[in-house]
Amino acid sequence: MNTLQCLINLLKEKGLKIAVAESCTGGLLGGALTSMPGSSEFFEMGIIAYSNKSKIKLLGIRDATIHEYGAVSENTAKEMAINIKNTAGTHIGVSITGIAGPGGGSRDKPVGLVYIGISMEDNTYIYKHCFGGDRASIRKQSVLSALEHILSLLVEER
Amino acid sequence: MNTLQCLINLLKEKGLKIAVAESCTGGLLGGALTSMPGSSEFFEMGIIAYSNKSKIKLLGIRDATIHEYGAVSENTAKEMAINIKNTAGTHIGVSITGIAGPGGGSRDKPVGLVYIGISMEDNTYIYKHCFGGDRASIRKQSVLSALEHILSLLVEER
Repeated sequence: MNTLQCLINLLKEKGLKIAVAESCTGGLLGGALTSMPGSSEFFEMGIIAYSNKSKIKLLGIRDATIHEYGAVSENTAKEMAINIKNTAGTHIGVSITGIAGPGGGSRDKPVGLVYIGISMEDNTYIYKHCFGGDRASIRKQSVLSALEHILSLLVEER
Repeated sequence: MNTLQCLINLLKEKGLKIAVAESCTGGLLGGALTSMPGSSEFFEMGIIAYSNKSKIKLLGIRDATIHEYGAVSENTAKEMAINIKNTAGTHIGVSITGIAGPGGGSRDKPVGLVYIGISMEDNTYIYKHCFGGDRASIRKQSVLSALEHILSLLVEER
């Protein structure tokens, strides 16, 4: 059984609802979580906050957070995960923000830098990744990593 | 050149911004539109309104519309397209709502029934499809059809 199927089974077994806030993956995490039948049992909603404007307006990320730390940062990932959980009223909120490339990278924030945030109950976990490969590969690895991190947290919790 | 690449070129050429509201495709339309480099030039944001609650709360679909016509209906697709365009402040708003199956179908609304809405300026166009195939195929055809419909409208407009 693969990661996605394990995660879905666990979400259903525990009766947990999930919501996502995506930037560089543009909806692919939501797409993965709704790929199996019966996903309405655990998937509530998602926000694809691609522009900074949409991160602020729709997700309620603080203007100061984006200006001080950047859209691709631990702080923004954290606010995205917490805010989507609160907006959706779900048990779990997941965020992905990163630089899928090929443009947009810098020395401090290279292409492939991706932050994944997971907010569950009162805790929020942030994972920093530096993925290799092209745009499609970085986006795919981001989605897979997010699924793996959620699964790990739920398994540890047992 | 494929549909997606043609559409992206045209959006960039015309300086148009787009936003999406997805139900059964769960984010895959956003995923497709952001798959090429430079998508931030034309892609603003998306809402994955999977549950009815999220359609009402986040997208502002009227409770009466869902109760009277159902979440998979011409009326809901229309409101989704108009509301995402207004929320995002973009030139174009696109919606997809349908029954990807394998469950959830009925005689009146079979598995594969998908409505695609496109709101541009003061006009909103609704396309009704009945796709064959399994869940993955229905979702894939929905995304491709949406891209084709947007492209056709933009080409006609020229």
